[in-house]
Amino acid sequence: MTTSSAARCLVCRNCGTETPLRPQHACYECFGPLEVAYDNDALGRVTRTDIEAGPNNMWRYAPLLPVGQEAAARVTLDPGLTPLVRADALADELGMTGTVWVKDDSANPSHSFKDRVVSVALTAAKGFGFTRFACASTGNLANSVAAHAARAGVPSMVFIPSDLESGKVLTTAVYGGDVVAIEGSYDDVNRLCSELTETDEFEKTAFVNVNLRPFYAEGSKTLGYEVAEQLGWRIPAQVVIPMASGELLTKVDKAFAELVEIGLATAPEGGWRVFGAQSSGCNPIAVALHNGATDIIPVKPTGIAKSLNIGDPAAGLYALESVRRTNGWMEYVDDDEIREGIRQLARTTGIFAETAGGVTTAVLGKLVKSGKLDPTLETVVFNTGEGLKTLDAIEGRVGPTYQIRPSLKAAREAQLIG
Amino acid sequence: MTTSSAARCLVCRNCGTETPLRPQHACYECFGPLEVAYDNDALGRVTRTDIEAGPNNMWRYAPLLPVGQEAAARVTLDPGLTPLVRADALADELGMTGTVWVKDDSANPSHSFKDRVVSVALTAAKGFGFTRFACASTGNLANSVAAHAARAGVPSMVFIPSDLESGKVLTTAVYGGDVVAIEGSYDDVNRLCSELTETDEFEKTAFVNVNLRPFYAEGSKTLGYEVAEQLGWRIPAQVVIPMASGELLTKVDKAFAELVEIGLATAPEGGWRVFGAQSSGCNPIAVALHNGATDIIPVKPTGIAKSLNIGDPAAGLYALESVRRTNGWMEYVDDDEIREGIRQLARTTGIFAETAGGVTTAVLGKLVKSGKLDPTLETVVFNTGEGLKTLDAIEGRVGPTYQIRPSLKAAREAQLIG
Repeated sequence: MTTSSAARCLVCRNCGTETPLRPQHACYECFGPLEVAYDNDALGRVTRTDIEAGPNNMWRYAPLLPVGQEAAARVTLDPGLTPLVRADALADELGMTGTVWVKDDSANPSHSFKDRVVSVALTAAKGFGFTRFACASTGNLANSVAAHAARAGVPSMVFIPSDLESGKVLTTAVYGGDVVAIEGSYDDVNRLCSELTETDEFEKTAFVNVNLRPFYAEGSKTLGYEVAEQLGWRIPAQVVIPMASGELLTKVDKAFAELVEIGLATAPEGGWRVFGAQSSGCNPIAVALHNGATDIIPVKPTGIAKSLNIGDPAAGLYALESVRRTNGWMEYVDDDEIREGIRQLARTTGIFAETAGGVTTAVLGKLVKSGKLDPTLETVVFNTGEGLKTLDAIEGRVGPTYQIRPSLKAAREAQLIG
Repeated sequence: MTTSSAARCLVCRNCGTETPLRPQHACYECFGPLEVAYDNDALGRVTRTDIEAGPNNMWRYAPLLPVGQEAAARVTLDPGLTPLVRADALADELGMTGTVWVKDDSANPSHSFKDRVVSVALTAAKGFGFTRFACASTGNLANSVAAHAARAGVPSMVFIPSDLESGKVLTTAVYGGDVVAIEGSYDDVNRLCSELTETDEFEKTAFVNVNLRPFYAEGSKTLGYEVAEQLGWRIPAQVVIPMASGELLTKVDKAFAELVEIGLATAPEGGWRVFGAQSSGCNPIAVALHNGATDIIPVKPTGIAKSLNIGDPAAGLYALESVRRTNGWMEYVDDDEIREGIRQLARTTGIFAETAGGVTTAVLGKLVKSGKLDPTLETVVFNTGEGLKTLDAIEGRVGPTYQIRPSLKAAREAQLIG
């Protein structure tokens, strides 16, 4: 197994122009988004044995990533290899006869899938000589960047909307880095961060999802790789993935395509189908699909699924492309459906998801009901975050079923005993 | 590798009377607590290779546990193999020159070490034919039992003090089982549960830490096994462990002793030393040690470290014995020290612990300062739970360092840029 990267260059997703591997996210020719391109021969030499001999975390896929081939160079909490949980009771409740799995990425160190993208971005950032770590975040990303920075002993400054769930703010601030609350939406935060990258004071600051974005996005591929490996190197027939920027969905799709192309995994008969999940309060990508549109009209996000509240989704068009190409679909659900989705997933699987996981579970149900998703095929649902971070969503909805004094008499009065 | 258990019987920790393996926690001769005893020859046949070939979770140690040798018989969220994180920055802050590690058990599925003990207890319970799962809990145990029951599709009823942190109540109730809030302390809850096990209505109910307690307690050994395996089959010179009932501390000590006895791990020169951590609001075991006492005077617990608030600790005497025999020590810290312990651990390691982890970190500092713990020796600190469950502890203490409008002008006014 080689310790060199198979990454070849950055390439524009719009016009195809190639750029050297460096901290740059927009094409100088057309301003389109850049992504990492690989040497296909080098990828083709990666074997299952290489991967299976790697560590029990996402870095086992280092041969398929742009950075991190040498363990000592990584800036990481070692996320990944999170549980793929068989969800028979959930399938039963939804009337599905195909096997349903939940990929539970709340099991990552800072309890969201963001640890994957942050580990790749900050490893790249360290290699490029950046001395401060930063991000624009709806919460989970801030948690992850602050925790990674604390582990690495590097200063951090994270930018969040000021109306974020208090749990996500506290969980970020506790690591001791700077936390900048912005009086505006995530989209406002993101714009400000883009502007700050151009200033002298931020020249040595790596914004994981701005100037490091092409590297950052590649981290999401590991979710796709893992699902395939955990299924015995098979791609599932259907996947349901929450969408904020839409990037996670496109990268899972890309990961599946790579594995099939280099011969590491087998595709299901008829190919895999990719489904996207949003909330009613922030559904620009799903609405574009429903309208058969070729562009996405930004919205002002509302609703409780704050980690998905990106009104102007950077990868929305590419998510549309993935879903259309694979004959999938997108759906959205309202706040009450999200709350019920959280409870349904918890009740049937023992997995307590944040609002984004409630979105995905509820969308799964909706897709089954509408017939858009085939209930007889194997389906993987992605839970990307932890219920403990969005307790507000269920506060007042669940609680003790009994409250009694500590005596058998009180237990009898409450009819716990006869 | 055999699929039969090496467990031989239950044995009284007081009088040594042997009892068959069954759901019983007190000796019929002397009312002393029972624990699992093993066939030493069978344990002696277990090899490192057997263990290393096992799954990447606590069940790799099934050959050393009383139940769970057959995967299909397990009731489990598959906890374990949690990270052992090297904490150089923490060591530096405390002036320690020996390597410091944090065993981070917040990485378990329901985010505390309780998943280990619950997995063993409920696997035993299923084998004994129980049809409902229950516990008396200060919070984490309730989370874990409710989540395990949901995954297994078995009804559950958990008993908690009514003044518990709301995060722990919600995180339990979301799984849809019964949650009984008791107007009293944990010790009151525990007494009521003992009484309920004697009633007809609870005949088929497994209280993991009452009638299944001998099995339950064995699960804690896996924390000790893992630390040794993760250090390359070496026992560390010093361990610092939080104490509620005191059972975790005794079982880690037991695990180390077993590994050395059967030749799987090497002991450090001069043996290992076990240190116990409590809070000032609930310190009956540490006070007994400080007073040179041979019995423990129960207290009425107060303070923010609620998961450790057991005023009448069931294994307190055995924890005293472990600490005295290994030449360790115990210390306790107040609520402000606990809060600072949480922040220090987060800032230096990227691990966000619940109050119990704050206790342990602060106690480590106190032990170094007083010279009771040798700062030149390798030391492992146990974080047993997740900061997201006790956000109240840091609410108002950490938060955004800046709050600004989304513009470069505002960033300039806040002196983020010049």
